[in-house]
Amino acid sequence: MTRHRNELKIIGFDADDTLWQNERFFRGTQQRFEALLADYVQGAHLHERLLAAERRNLGHYGYGIKGFTLSMIETAIEVSDARVPAAVLAEILEAGRQMLSHPVELLPGVRSTVERLAREYRIVLITKGDLLDQERKLAASGLGEVFDAVEIVSEKTPAVYHRIFRSQGHEPEAAMMVGNSMRSDVIPALETGAWGVHVPHGLTWELEHANAPADHPRFQHLDRIEALPDLILSL
Amino acid sequence: MTRHRNELKIIGFDADDTLWQNERFFRGTQQRFEALLADYVQGAHLHERLLAAERRNLGHYGYGIKGFTLSMIETAIEVSDARVPAAVLAEILEAGRQMLSHPVELLPGVRSTVERLAREYRIVLITKGDLLDQERKLAASGLGEVFDAVEIVSEKTPAVYHRIFRSQGHEPEAAMMVGNSMRSDVIPALETGAWGVHVPHGLTWELEHANAPADHPRFQHLDRIEALPDLILSL
Repeated sequence: MTRHRNELKIIGFDADDTLWQNERFFRGTQQRFEALLADYVQGAHLHERLLAAERRNLGHYGYGIKGFTLSMIETAIEVSDARVPAAVLAEILEAGRQMLSHPVELLPGVRSTVERLAREYRIVLITKGDLLDQERKLAASGLGEVFDAVEIVSEKTPAVYHRIFRSQGHEPEAAMMVGNSMRSDVIPALETGAWGVHVPHGLTWELEHANAPADHPRFQHLDRIEALPDLILSL
Repeated sequence: MTRHRNELKIIGFDADDTLWQNERFFRGTQQRFEALLADYVQGAHLHERLLAAERRNLGHYGYGIKGFTLSMIETAIEVSDARVPAAVLAEILEAGRQMLSHPVELLPGVRSTVERLAREYRIVLITKGDLLDQERKLAASGLGEVFDAVEIVSEKTPAVYHRIFRSQGHEPEAAMMVGNSMRSDVIPALETGAWGVHVPHGLTWELEHANAPADHPRFQHLDRIEALPDLILSL
């Protein structure tokens, strides 16, 4: 069955590490976290312990900086056998709060690409994370007015993508999702019948990794988001 | 100008302490928090200090249990001059996590009232708080299928109400908002031109208090949510 490009009506964009830097700030805070705990733990695989706490807490906290901060505090207490002083925990709290006001740095080519596609397609921002924090970043990005709709969701499942595309008046077959997470942006969008376009970012959180569905007919890979308009023309 | 009841098309319902118990769980956790810190602080106006931290952090954390937990930890460190042991902070973390799985207890008359009104009006759940936690509570309430739409928002401003009513195809004049918070549910809805119906709950967070707009022509007060259908008939 041949697909014509004029079937495409709606494009969903992931936000963190697709439109703007995000993981970089998590990594920076993790380094600070490890430095703060250096005196209280010896070779404790701190990174793995923190990741395990994040994974364990995901069902309670969901995604975002507040849950990450709570998981850092929990891990600090756990790995130090509760010997970590409250003053160190106060610094971890402060590091989390600073993340919530980090600057928003658009990735190269994002503004021109999104603005160009917005002239021809409905474009929707689809992101996970803390509600207020994602709204703050969108406002600071200057892209708020470009998107036709913004959906901040607790998880990116096929059902969620289906609901969003339908709420914008289109079936998934007329939709495309673009993002850096194979697990959250590409695979569940493909499962609904939409196009899934992977634009990898050098830094991606371990919990977002997944294998590429390389032989799926609607899977696409781009090195740079600027190539998206040409890709769409070629479909 | 006479308003006819057949003008009403859409009813927004607040969730926490309007449809189900919420503040009760915050109060219970605060009591536990105060008991945990009893050995480390002397008459420190713990309640006021925690409230001050919550107010200070609202712009960063927004509403919900994760931010509340972070504010409890911050307050515990602050009031104890960082003498609080990590083991006590671990108990505060655990108390926060338990709140995130508290049972959902519908308030009296909610189910029958909401189901009855859903037959005649579009009904929308409009709530603040942590995204995942509010979704969990809605699912556990068994009311998820009754609502035509669910909006979990970071703040309840007139602009937010306006956007929600419009996205459902109606002007605010055809809308009503029902809730226990004068500050978040009633006053901003009235400011858009909608009806604002206050259904007070015995327990309301201090930051949600506001004076009743008693002489506003679209302000209504109900002691019990069951009286809402009769109120609508009388408008």
